[in-house]
Amino acid sequence: MQNKDYMQMAVQEALKAQGMTWTNPLVGAVLVKDDQVLATGYHHQFGKEHAEVNTLSHLADPKQAQGATLYVTLEPCSHYGKQPPCCKKVAEAGIKKVVIGQVDPHQIVAGKGIKYLKNHGVQTEVIGGTENLNVAYNFFYQQERPFVTLKYAMSIDGKINAAGKRRTMLTGDAAQVDVQKLRLQNQAILIGANTLRIDNPLLTVRIKNLPHPPIRIVLTKDANQLDFTSQLFKARGQIWLLSETKLTQKVGENVCCYTASKWTPAKVVQLLAEHEIQSLLVEGGSNIQAQFVAADLVDEIVAYVAPIVLGGTALPAVFGQALTGISHYQLLDVKSLNQDVRIRVRRKECLQE
Amino acid sequence: MQNKDYMQMAVQEALKAQGMTWTNPLVGAVLVKDDQVLATGYHHQFGKEHAEVNTLSHLADPKQAQGATLYVTLEPCSHYGKQPPCCKKVAEAGIKKVVIGQVDPHQIVAGKGIKYLKNHGVQTEVIGGTENLNVAYNFFYQQERPFVTLKYAMSIDGKINAAGKRRTMLTGDAAQVDVQKLRLQNQAILIGANTLRIDNPLLTVRIKNLPHPPIRIVLTKDANQLDFTSQLFKARGQIWLLSETKLTQKVGENVCCYTASKWTPAKVVQLLAEHEIQSLLVEGGSNIQAQFVAADLVDEIVAYVAPIVLGGTALPAVFGQALTGISHYQLLDVKSLNQDVRIRVRRKECLQE
Repeated sequence: MQNKDYMQMAVQEALKAQGMTWTNPLVGAVLVKDDQVLATGYHHQFGKEHAEVNTLSHLADPKQAQGATLYVTLEPCSHYGKQPPCCKKVAEAGIKKVVIGQVDPHQIVAGKGIKYLKNHGVQTEVIGGTENLNVAYNFFYQQERPFVTLKYAMSIDGKINAAGKRRTMLTGDAAQVDVQKLRLQNQAILIGANTLRIDNPLLTVRIKNLPHPPIRIVLTKDANQLDFTSQLFKARGQIWLLSETKLTQKVGENVCCYTASKWTPAKVVQLLAEHEIQSLLVEGGSNIQAQFVAADLVDEIVAYVAPIVLGGTALPAVFGQALTGISHYQLLDVKSLNQDVRIRVRRKECLQE
Repeated sequence: MQNKDYMQMAVQEALKAQGMTWTNPLVGAVLVKDDQVLATGYHHQFGKEHAEVNTLSHLADPKQAQGATLYVTLEPCSHYGKQPPCCKKVAEAGIKKVVIGQVDPHQIVAGKGIKYLKNHGVQTEVIGGTENLNVAYNFFYQQERPFVTLKYAMSIDGKINAAGKRRTMLTGDAAQVDVQKLRLQNQAILIGANTLRIDNPLLTVRIKNLPHPPIRIVLTKDANQLDFTSQLFKARGQIWLLSETKLTQKVGENVCCYTASKWTPAKVVQLLAEHEIQSLLVEGGSNIQAQFVAADLVDEIVAYVAPIVLGGTALPAVFGQALTGISHYQLLDVKSLNQDVRIRVRRKECLQE
């Protein structure tokens, strides 16, 4: 096996924890000696041991690590956080060489891990190829704001809803499951008060039991006008209300109200950045989508196209605020989901996959 | 090789004449004896010899056909049209067996060819699998109206045009070439007067020199108001103007004006049916698309989705006429065309592919 094959194995390890690491990156590792895999491991959950230590813990005898090569998808950390630094553990274990998928963009690590290893007699090599594991994490530490994804389902004639104010289910089961996977990859999900009222969504991840489910955010003029009997408020997990008016009534402990004179996409994104939330999924409605597009704050669009014609004067996917220019994206991929089609496009400068 | 392999070979032969056979179906044939292909052939062009005769003409010695099996994608004809009936030729050639892809839905043939062959001592077998060669032809003789396809390009937010009355080029070269192939498969192309004015399209097939290019149709309130210096009128080939007012001025000999008090999709389709036009491609605008959808006269939709956000209040793909119900289609296929995505959906009862 070659370097990149072992690294791919480490990527597969990392992916096992999708949705579980909260604001930590997904990290996987593989320990190899004489072309034999001695152990594999990954960062299982926010607050738990890192991938390197998890891998070492799987050795029958710690001495096996001596002279071995560790493949790890992200540069080992060098600072004391919730866990002692991995670099120290790696060097102490007698590992000869660390092959790294990607340098950590987080300033607290960023090259310091590699430096520590070198200073302690461990060879290092950065081979790349794991950047897609943590698109939002990387983006956040490079751009200092969350990676914003717009998601919507539309009919093949470009509408998100039939005319009138009722919910229209456009897509089938396979697309619904795909949306669950998309939510799993985001730390926050935002909708507008209209969407809350018309769709009455849960906005939860139901395919996996997450220790830190995405924060569900409702953008509204007046939080006091919201219907607190909506489904949203019945499911556990943090809820943020972004309101122009202070919330006067008492609601659940998981509900937090932030006020501003007017919530623009820039302000929303800034608030999330302050809380170190690295990813935001905007799930509608059409007017809020348009505001994010107009503010040039959309990094990826995931559109589900259903083989349905709504016709008439139904609302298109992004509607209501004039764009000064046309926004060009790059096609990331297209996938059939039974009867529906998923199209993903990404801002050109964000393109990694 | 098996029956279906030879039939596939015959299908490949048939496809060589795409766009060339006008209202005739595409037909291909393969002559086989002792597991050896003796000759192949196809119907090259409207008015030219049929596939069976074309195949026989490729034999060095006509006697070779004696005792051979002929694979032909469509039931051989039994009537005198522009050509003498193929059945007669096939029987006279001493062919032992005819394996047929599909019974001809055209009443003038429909089983009569098979009957003729049987009566003249030729074995026959219908094995199916060639129905997709002539979707519109089959549809026309079953439904007695042309097969209608809507085609549009839209942004990933479901718009066909930026706000304002100028043309917006959404898709790239690969999609443009694909549109040419789509036009090749249609006998008529329709647009509205607005689209003529804003887009000033040629509506021609430029990838192949067609003896009978698709009839280009413009739907308008008053044909006299059209700009006859538009590109459309400069390219050769039939043009039909469907107007509510008689055309008073003299225009080119290739231009024909039909009048009706109000041109509904049903009337358009009826006119085409009377002229035995089997397929119609509707290329916009958004209001005409909506009329065809509302009239339940759309059999297939070909949507090209570009990785562009137009945002604002730009027109969606199908707009302006309320639908009483939601129209459900079936996903036919999805294809990446460089940066664009083509999605094809078909009316469920038309599904053959």
